[in-house]
Amino acid sequence: MVYTISHSRRVRATPFTAGVEAAGVSAYTVYNRMLLPTVFDSVESDYRHLKEHVQVWDVSVERQIELNGPDASHLMQLLTPRDLRKMQSDQCYYVPITDEDGKMLNDPVAIKHSDTRWWVSIADSDLLLWIKGLAVGRGLDVRVFEPDVSPLAIQGPKAETLMARVFGPQVRDIGFFRYKRLFFGKSAFIVARSGYSKQGGFEIYVEGAENGMPLWNALFDAGQDLHVRPGCPNLIERIEGGLLSYGNDMNMENSPLECGLSKFCKPADDIDHIGFGAISRERNTGPLRQIRAIAVQGAPLQPARAAWPLMKDGQRVGQITSATWSPDFSTNVAIGMVDAGHWEAGTVLIVETPEGPREAIIEEKFWI
Amino acid sequence: MVYTISHSRRVRATPFTAGVEAAGVSAYTVYNRMLLPTVFDSVESDYRHLKEHVQVWDVSVERQIELNGPDASHLMQLLTPRDLRKMQSDQCYYVPITDEDGKMLNDPVAIKHSDTRWWVSIADSDLLLWIKGLAVGRGLDVRVFEPDVSPLAIQGPKAETLMARVFGPQVRDIGFFRYKRLFFGKSAFIVARSGYSKQGGFEIYVEGAENGMPLWNALFDAGQDLHVRPGCPNLIERIEGGLLSYGNDMNMENSPLECGLSKFCKPADDIDHIGFGAISRERNTGPLRQIRAIAVQGAPLQPARAAWPLMKDGQRVGQITSATWSPDFSTNVAIGMVDAGHWEAGTVLIVETPEGPREAIIEEKFWI
Repeated sequence: MVYTISHSRRVRATPFTAGVEAAGVSAYTVYNRMLLPTVFDSVESDYRHLKEHVQVWDVSVERQIELNGPDASHLMQLLTPRDLRKMQSDQCYYVPITDEDGKMLNDPVAIKHSDTRWWVSIADSDLLLWIKGLAVGRGLDVRVFEPDVSPLAIQGPKAETLMARVFGPQVRDIGFFRYKRLFFGKSAFIVARSGYSKQGGFEIYVEGAENGMPLWNALFDAGQDLHVRPGCPNLIERIEGGLLSYGNDMNMENSPLECGLSKFCKPADDIDHIGFGAISRERNTGPLRQIRAIAVQGAPLQPARAAWPLMKDGQRVGQITSATWSPDFSTNVAIGMVDAGHWEAGTVLIVETPEGPREAIIEEKFWI
Repeated sequence: MVYTISHSRRVRATPFTAGVEAAGVSAYTVYNRMLLPTVFDSVESDYRHLKEHVQVWDVSVERQIELNGPDASHLMQLLTPRDLRKMQSDQCYYVPITDEDGKMLNDPVAIKHSDTRWWVSIADSDLLLWIKGLAVGRGLDVRVFEPDVSPLAIQGPKAETLMARVFGPQVRDIGFFRYKRLFFGKSAFIVARSGYSKQGGFEIYVEGAENGMPLWNALFDAGQDLHVRPGCPNLIERIEGGLLSYGNDMNMENSPLECGLSKFCKPADDIDHIGFGAISRERNTGPLRQIRAIAVQGAPLQPARAAWPLMKDGQRVGQITSATWSPDFSTNVAIGMVDAGHWEAGTVLIVETPEGPREAIIEEKFWI
């Protein structure tokens, strides 16, 4: 069924909404209480274009949380099981954030400005409140706030060409999950090689809402011959690539080990992270369930709107949380959480979809 | 413009979504990462019906946060400037929640079960993360979590009649912002005389998602002759009644005094609230701006999608954050925040709307 989204100030527009709507966005979701485009032409045509050309994505919903003050680095390490001690001031780290029970509160990217200044580029939860609550409760000397920063992602195989035209050839020297401060007009923005697709590209951390539309327009002016188009995180491409979505594929009930993020959890207890004890205990016993790539057999399915139970001999042994038809792989691609004992590649389970039961096969890896 | 809302597990459905959609909901917003209906027939026809009959509202988005443990009451008082010491175990209190700077993080209703168990029925921010962060940071002995509770509101002049048919005549004895535990089948639910309208009614805190649709169906079966209909918080009615919306009319930039909530702030420093110092200082100087009812002149306006600047002699002196046409009062009714020196009733300002500048008159009170 198709429903309209109602407008209000509470569901915030972005500095790029005027451009997004002029370009003919057709559907939105709400992410961090802000509008996130989900479809321009059609999900499949957006997907095809993303894999061939270059797209400009309004990902302002990746709100930034700034940690600023003498205790900023201490607080940042309290938040995550990932060891931040060797992180340099031009790096971005994917950092699971867990609570005192070692459960996922968010899976953002941390951007280090200096030992006393960090940004956290958040997934879909009000992580500001957790960070601030912890800082106030502990009496730390750090300010925690949301600065006026709205990321714009440039994604697709021609992203580097387009970015070099607008920001200069230095963009070519930016390493994966590294950043440079580059000028657009009189403003210098953080430009990182990162983004929520597997097609390559950059994220520009646009400071100052007033700079949004001038940059948007400059990118479209510079990229006409590259077939530049507006786009957005694409459901098909992100499932094929195994990009997890917080709130869909994991939430506060899951641990980083369940999410396949153990490589981002320091194994030894020489960092001061609030969930370290719980994560250590789970590492000893092993996780009870894990994220898996799953191929669902049969005709194309409508995207999942709720968790679909995974069954084996009448028992629930997991769930699928994201699913859609992949034109390139001619199967329904899915992400799910599968209980221990059932997660080996090749295992065949039954998934209860709104369109009836289907065979679901655990894959060795995602479609990349 | 009309845009579609995309489905995913991340934007959660509710225990009543099946009923809401079968009844023909036409638009949604997202509130606490969950679907909130906004329109069934039309906003104006929903409004007319609400003032005359009785409506059943899926307000599951009012998620509950449970504070459970020896330090629950201590933690609850840390959160709010309202004095909770005399609150009884059958009471609900509207409680501004402020941070250490005395700024609004949420404006929920607190429900006291006992000295060691509370629920907080939240407005639109992940207050769970703040409460949990503070508790963990302070090392308090309390568990903080979201229980499986989804409120259903029964609103309108015939609400008591309908509720008495389903829950028995005891509902008539429930005082304003008081509650009783009443049975539906084998389950006892908290039933409070409260709700986000000025038409009177109740909120049922439905425990257990599996109990949602049976109760929904029972209410519709019992109320056919009362013209019972599904409904939702109504934009026109709530602005007429001066019901503030967190995220629209106030946010983390505002204090309770700015929001007209000083009566909920204990004036003397004999409670342990984290924002007490900041609120005391502001009480001495007076707030810099305040919430006001505002009548916008001229033809009916489309609802506000962003803050509209309020101007006086070319200077910005405030903003309107909610606005719509009121059929009953034949004017555009609005809620805004107005700077000191400009908030007296009768003051005429200019509001910059997307449909051009209009005269905006500060009202003595809301339209109730």
